[in-house]
Amino acid sequence: MIRLNENYLKLKSSYLFADIAKRVNTFQEADPDREIIRLGIGDVTRELPGVCVDAFHKAVDEMAVESTFRGYGPEQGYAFLREKVARFDFQERGAEVAADEIFISDGAKCDSGNFQELFADDITIALPDPVYPVYVDTNVMAGRTGPFTDGRYEGFVYLDGTKENGFVPSIPETHVDCIYLCFPNNPTGSVATHAQLKEWVDYAKKEKALILFDAAYAAFIRDESIPVSIFEIEGAREVAVEFRSFSKTAGFTGTRCAYTVVPKECLIYDAGGTAHPLHQFWNRRHTTKFNGVSYPVQRAAEAIYIGEGPQQIRTLTDYYMNNASLIRERMTALGYECFGGTNAPYIWIDGKADSWEFFDLLLQKAGVVCTPGSGFGKCGNGYIRISAFNDPKKVETAMDRIAEALGK
Amino acid sequence: MIRLNENYLKLKSSYLFADIAKRVNTFQEADPDREIIRLGIGDVTRELPGVCVDAFHKAVDEMAVESTFRGYGPEQGYAFLREKVARFDFQERGAEVAADEIFISDGAKCDSGNFQELFADDITIALPDPVYPVYVDTNVMAGRTGPFTDGRYEGFVYLDGTKENGFVPSIPETHVDCIYLCFPNNPTGSVATHAQLKEWVDYAKKEKALILFDAAYAAFIRDESIPVSIFEIEGAREVAVEFRSFSKTAGFTGTRCAYTVVPKECLIYDAGGTAHPLHQFWNRRHTTKFNGVSYPVQRAAEAIYIGEGPQQIRTLTDYYMNNASLIRERMTALGYECFGGTNAPYIWIDGKADSWEFFDLLLQKAGVVCTPGSGFGKCGNGYIRISAFNDPKKVETAMDRIAEALGK
Repeated sequence: MIRLNENYLKLKSSYLFADIAKRVNTFQEADPDREIIRLGIGDVTRELPGVCVDAFHKAVDEMAVESTFRGYGPEQGYAFLREKVARFDFQERGAEVAADEIFISDGAKCDSGNFQELFADDITIALPDPVYPVYVDTNVMAGRTGPFTDGRYEGFVYLDGTKENGFVPSIPETHVDCIYLCFPNNPTGSVATHAQLKEWVDYAKKEKALILFDAAYAAFIRDESIPVSIFEIEGAREVAVEFRSFSKTAGFTGTRCAYTVVPKECLIYDAGGTAHPLHQFWNRRHTTKFNGVSYPVQRAAEAIYIGEGPQQIRTLTDYYMNNASLIRERMTALGYECFGGTNAPYIWIDGKADSWEFFDLLLQKAGVVCTPGSGFGKCGNGYIRISAFNDPKKVETAMDRIAEALGK
Repeated sequence: MIRLNENYLKLKSSYLFADIAKRVNTFQEADPDREIIRLGIGDVTRELPGVCVDAFHKAVDEMAVESTFRGYGPEQGYAFLREKVARFDFQERGAEVAADEIFISDGAKCDSGNFQELFADDITIALPDPVYPVYVDTNVMAGRTGPFTDGRYEGFVYLDGTKENGFVPSIPETHVDCIYLCFPNNPTGSVATHAQLKEWVDYAKKEKALILFDAAYAAFIRDESIPVSIFEIEGAREVAVEFRSFSKTAGFTGTRCAYTVVPKECLIYDAGGTAHPLHQFWNRRHTTKFNGVSYPVQRAAEAIYIGEGPQQIRTLTDYYMNNASLIRERMTALGYECFGGTNAPYIWIDGKADSWEFFDLLLQKAGVVCTPGSGFGKCGNGYIRISAFNDPKKVETAMDRIAEALGK
C-alpha cells in the first residue's frame, strides 16, 4: 500500500497566499467592476530592466542557431554568472565568497525550502516569528515538528519578533542546531546591524549551529551601515549559508533566478561528531535533483552586473522604495504605528485589531489587498504587511481609499 | 550541533554523468586538439524549433513593458500551457487527463526526484535495473535504503531488465508499494506494449501500489501500437503519476520545462489505511517549494502545440531518430547486439566487456563518449548506451572511428 508522508497532514490547510487569493477572488466575483489594488503578495509590477531584456533576447537568438545553441548547462549555473555574483555581490563589498561557492537556482523559495533536506530529522530548528511561511512548512513536511496547536507547531524554537526588540529576534537561551534568519525581514521590514548579526554568528560558532540567512531583499538596504550579506560578518563563513534572489532586485518574480552561497569552510556533523564540509552535500543535492536554470534567464540575470545594469537596478528598487516611504508616511498620519519600509519594501503596521479582520476591512471598504500579519506567525497577529511593489499612482490611490475607509 | 542527513553518506561518491565528465576532461586535457564526439549524456544539440524561438522572443517583449509584464505566475503553470498539454498530449490520444491535473515544472529530473517526498519513509520501492540514477539516488537520500553493497542498495526491490525480458521488467513476485517505470526506457531504449503496461496497472491496483511513470522520451515512439502515456491504459488514473518533458521533445534541455500529471482519482493511504487523493499533496508540495516556470519559457513550450509546432517537433525528433537508425545499423554490422533505437533515441549495446572498459576504449581509441551501462545499475554491466543526440555528420564520423578503433 502506497503510504503518505503523514507530516503533510499536520500542515495547516493551505498556504497563506493561496488563502488570500481565495478571499480576493470571492470579493472580486461579487463585485466584478471594482478595481482591486494588490499590495499583498509582494510581487513586482514594473517591467524587466532594459539591460536584462536585451541580454534575454540575445540569448534566445543563440538558442535559435545550432552553433551557439546550449543544451544542459552546469547544474550549479554558468561560470559567467557565478563569477559576477561572487565579485559584485560579495567581493567588492569586502565579503569573501568564491564563484564555486555560488549555486544558481530558479528561486530562493525553492532553495530555502530544499536546504533542510541535508539535515538529520531530529535537529532543533529555531525560526523567527513572524516569518516567511516556507521555512516553517518545509520543516513540518520533513517531520521535524509535532502537531499545530495554539497557533504554533510543537518542536520549533520560535524567536519572537516584537516591538520591544525591533523585530530583530534575540539569541535563544537554549541550544538550537539551525537558525533561519531573514534580513531585510519579510514581513516586518526590519534589518539587523553588524553587531546583532555578529552575536548570531558567535552563538552559532559556540553551539556548532548553522544559520540559514535569507537575504532576498538585500537590494533594498539604503542605510550604508547595515550589512547586506551575512558574509560581511567575521566568522560567518564557518556557520552560515545565504539565499539571494533576482526576483525583487531585478523584477525576476516571473522570470525565475536566484542563488545560494555555501562557503567551503561551513561544516555539518555526523552523529559521531565528525565534521564534514557542507558544500559537497548541497552540491550533491543540487546536481541530483535539479538541472540548472534556463540559459537565457541566466544571461538576463548576468546583465544586472554589466554596463548600465547596476544603475537600472538602483532605479528600479528606488521606484519601489519611494512607494514604501509614501505608505509609511500615510499610514503613520492615520495614526498607525509603522515599522520597516526604510531598508525593505515592506511596511509592517500595527493594525490595532485582529489581522484577518483588518485585512477584510481593507479589502471590503478600500478594495486594497494587504497581507495579514498572523499568516506569518503568532507574533504577527494584530499586524498587517503592506507591500511597496506597485505603481506609485496605485499606491497613492490605495492610501487615499484607506484614509477614506477608515473615516479620516 | 547541526547534524547531517547521514543517508547522503550512503550515496556512491558521485553522480554518473559527473564521473563521465571527469574522465572526458582528463582525456581532453592530455590531448587538447582531439575532437571528442559526445554520444554520452543524451543532451540535444539542435537549435530550438522556430516556433519556440518566436514565442520566446514575443514573451520577453511582454516582460519589457509594464502593461504586459508578468510577475509570479501560478506555481502549477499557466492555464494556456496546462490546457494545451491536457488536450494535445492526452485527450486527443484518447487518454483522459484534465488541465488541472498537469503541474508544469522546470524539469522531469526535479519532478521524478522530488515526488518521493510525499511518501512514508518505510515504503518498499521497486526500481528497474538498469535505470536512470535519479530514482535511486533520491530514495537513498530520503533514507529508504540500507548501505550500498555488491552493486546495489539494500532495501530496494530491483526489477531486472535483461535480454530475456527484452528490458521490460516483469511484475515482482512480492508486494511493493511504489514502482518506477520508464518507457521509452532510459537507458535501454525499450518500450512497453499496451498488454505489458496493463499488467503493471492491474498489479498496482491489486497491491494498492503507485506507479511513477517516466515518459520523458514519449516523443520518439514511432510504432503506433505502443502507448505513449500510461493514461492510455484502463485503470491507470487510479494508480499512476506520469512525468513528461519538453527537453528531448523540443530541445529544451537548456531552456527547462517539463510537467507531471497527477490524476484526481489517484490515491495514497495513511497508516490507518484511509485513502486520500494524492493530487492535493503534490499541489501542496509544488506550491510550497516551487515558484513556477519562467513565463517566457512557458510561452516557448506552448508553441509546440500551435500552428507549425507539431510538424517542427516531428522534424526535430526524426532528425535524431535517423541517427539512432544509423548507430544501430553500424554497431550491429560490427557484430554487437543492439537494443532500442527504434522508438527511443538510445541504443543499448552489448559490449561483450566490462562497461567502463568499453567506455574507456571508445574514448581513448575513437574519441567517442558513450555512457557505461553499469552506471545505470548492476544489470547494465557489459552494456553501453549510445545516444542519438548529435549532428548526423558527427554520428557518422563517430561510427567510422569506432569501426576503425575496433579494427574492422
